[in-house]
Amino acid sequence: MTAAERHDEAPRPTGEPPRFDAGALTAFAEALLVAAGLDGAKARDVAEVLVEGDLLGNDTHGLGLLSGYLGELGKGAMRASGEPEVIAERASVATWDGLRLPGPWLVRRAIDWAAPRAREHGTASVAIRRSHHIACLAAYLRQVADDGLLIVIASSDPATASVAPFGGTLAVFTPNPLAVGIPASNGPVLIDISASVTTNGMSNRLHAAGQRGAHAWWLDADGRAGNDPAVLFAQPPGTILPLGGLDAGHKGYGLALLVEALTGGLAGHGRADPPEGWGATVFVQIYDPSAFAGSEAFLRQSDWLVAACRASPPREAGRPVRLPGERGLALRVEQLADGVGLHPAIMPALLPWAERFGVAVPPARERAAGSR
Amino acid sequence: MTAAERHDEAPRPTGEPPRFDAGALTAFAEALLVAAGLDGAKARDVAEVLVEGDLLGNDTHGLGLLSGYLGELGKGAMRASGEPEVIAERASVATWDGLRLPGPWLVRRAIDWAAPRAREHGTASVAIRRSHHIACLAAYLRQVADDGLLIVIASSDPATASVAPFGGTLAVFTPNPLAVGIPASNGPVLIDISASVTTNGMSNRLHAAGQRGAHAWWLDADGRAGNDPAVLFAQPPGTILPLGGLDAGHKGYGLALLVEALTGGLAGHGRADPPEGWGATVFVQIYDPSAFAGSEAFLRQSDWLVAACRASPPREAGRPVRLPGERGLALRVEQLADGVGLHPAIMPALLPWAERFGVAVPPARERAAGSR
Repeated sequence: MTAAERHDEAPRPTGEPPRFDAGALTAFAEALLVAAGLDGAKARDVAEVLVEGDLLGNDTHGLGLLSGYLGELGKGAMRASGEPEVIAERASVATWDGLRLPGPWLVRRAIDWAAPRAREHGTASVAIRRSHHIACLAAYLRQVADDGLLIVIASSDPATASVAPFGGTLAVFTPNPLAVGIPASNGPVLIDISASVTTNGMSNRLHAAGQRGAHAWWLDADGRAGNDPAVLFAQPPGTILPLGGLDAGHKGYGLALLVEALTGGLAGHGRADPPEGWGATVFVQIYDPSAFAGSEAFLRQSDWLVAACRASPPREAGRPVRLPGERGLALRVEQLADGVGLHPAIMPALLPWAERFGVAVPPARERAAGSR
Repeated sequence: MTAAERHDEAPRPTGEPPRFDAGALTAFAEALLVAAGLDGAKARDVAEVLVEGDLLGNDTHGLGLLSGYLGELGKGAMRASGEPEVIAERASVATWDGLRLPGPWLVRRAIDWAAPRAREHGTASVAIRRSHHIACLAAYLRQVADDGLLIVIASSDPATASVAPFGGTLAVFTPNPLAVGIPASNGPVLIDISASVTTNGMSNRLHAAGQRGAHAWWLDADGRAGNDPAVLFAQPPGTILPLGGLDAGHKGYGLALLVEALTGGLAGHGRADPPEGWGATVFVQIYDPSAFAGSEAFLRQSDWLVAACRASPPREAGRPVRLPGERGLALRVEQLADGVGLHPAIMPALLPWAERFGVAVPPARERAAGSR
């Protein structure tokens, strides 16, 4: 029986995505990565971070990336073993050359490096050049924030550009995400935003489905704004507008430049260098509130804010104000219990890899009676 | 002859704002602040920062604030002397209680504290609770960035709120500005943005003039979006939309929460505490690129970005892409040479103070022949 056949036997409730045990998915992803040549410890980290993306409901930045990662390992574009090269290091700041090692593993190493140093010195920062792709930024935040630390992660991909500076028509930036984990007593606030009005992932998905955006998120190459992502795939290509759009896009433009300064600037490598393919320049900074006014004082403010945001009467009846990350964290709890509802495109893309490497595919779960 | 009479004699070219020598304006502002009881060194810093705001063309956050500051000094709401109280300090992070001392002086002290420590440790940060208002954030950036350091300043005012969380109708946040100074070889990039789609200053000015905004920047108390700032002054009041508006306002909302975490959170004082009047909670962080991959590597990236942004063909013919701060820095050079073109409302608001304190008002300058 092939992997594909095993998978096809799995029950699929009509109208619901197939659900898989999170632990089984992680083991599956890890086994595929190991079979593709990745060191065991690195494979474990990459697998966990990808599944965490799906658990949080980010179905473009979870296991949906694994097939691409396996392809990169296969052609040597993602490095399979070794350690990052230390370019500079002081007590609480470090600069690494990631040597195109897997991004999730590098970011977790950066967090492991920075967290104890933030506790000792108040803040600690790591800038990483030449990381491979780092997947879902929100997937790194929860554990750090649950440990009482404030974390900021910024990322840019110098090999590509789809976002124009405000007022321009030729792309200079990637969406340049900025993710923030904020400790709060009843679960952290997990922010994952970008300096652009929409992302490459959303643009690609809408374009593939022949759909339009909800708003005028794109410019064609002549600078005409519109809601059709197809302009990104035209020749010459259009661009994604910075956050704020035609109205206040100078603000998204400023944010994009901040992310570039923290990533390419501090890491000393980026758009000024020859592109090396799918990757990332990353900046991780951790702050320990107990080195400032104290953890209790910090939590008193964040708890107040959480309560105040929830108490703001909704603009649309029945749609209460949520905190960033709230829906993802609830989905995570539900999916850990009931199984991960993978986007229908994900498992079919992994079956050929499973077959090629002889890795067993986890069975889809029966839905538990009474589960949502 | 009274101060007002002297001022009225000054020549005023038709259609042009009156122009004043920057040094004379600084001395004038300093003398007024000293007369109102402020320590000499503090008065000098406040005067310089306010005039720097006008030099950069920010006419709501320069000397336009001075009358308000003098009033606050008069009633003891801005503290006239003393030092901030150190709440916590390690080698490269500090937390201060500003005790309602003048914001420009406190922020400059924070920069003076952090800059040498950033050079030693890579980064240094100061969180300040209970500062008085800190004026124009962009006014602090140039000198630091010209010294080769990357600086980030975030601020929130816990005594007031005008920005609702995304999806809500009751204000929780101030616009929560974020300012960034980025070193570059031919002049720094000076970013001064907010987490809201427009600011309180712009809303107040448009409302006072009976004008509308260019876009639907506000919600009324029932959550209807519109371009009339009057909703902020209605009962119950409306709100300013977060950056991204109805479309992508979850991103501005995330940015507002980041600023709150860095300011109120790390300073351990903010919205969870009883309001104390016009003021600010401030976070200043400085990064030294030479502790990361090196200043030269940093500048290579920022110079590349500056050139790439300028080279992006403009969306509208004749309106080339600018870098943040570019127009302000050019205006500064021009106004240092030709005089500061004060907004017409500013000097009349200061004349009663000049008269009361017997401080001589600087004469408006004759326009130099051939000047723009």
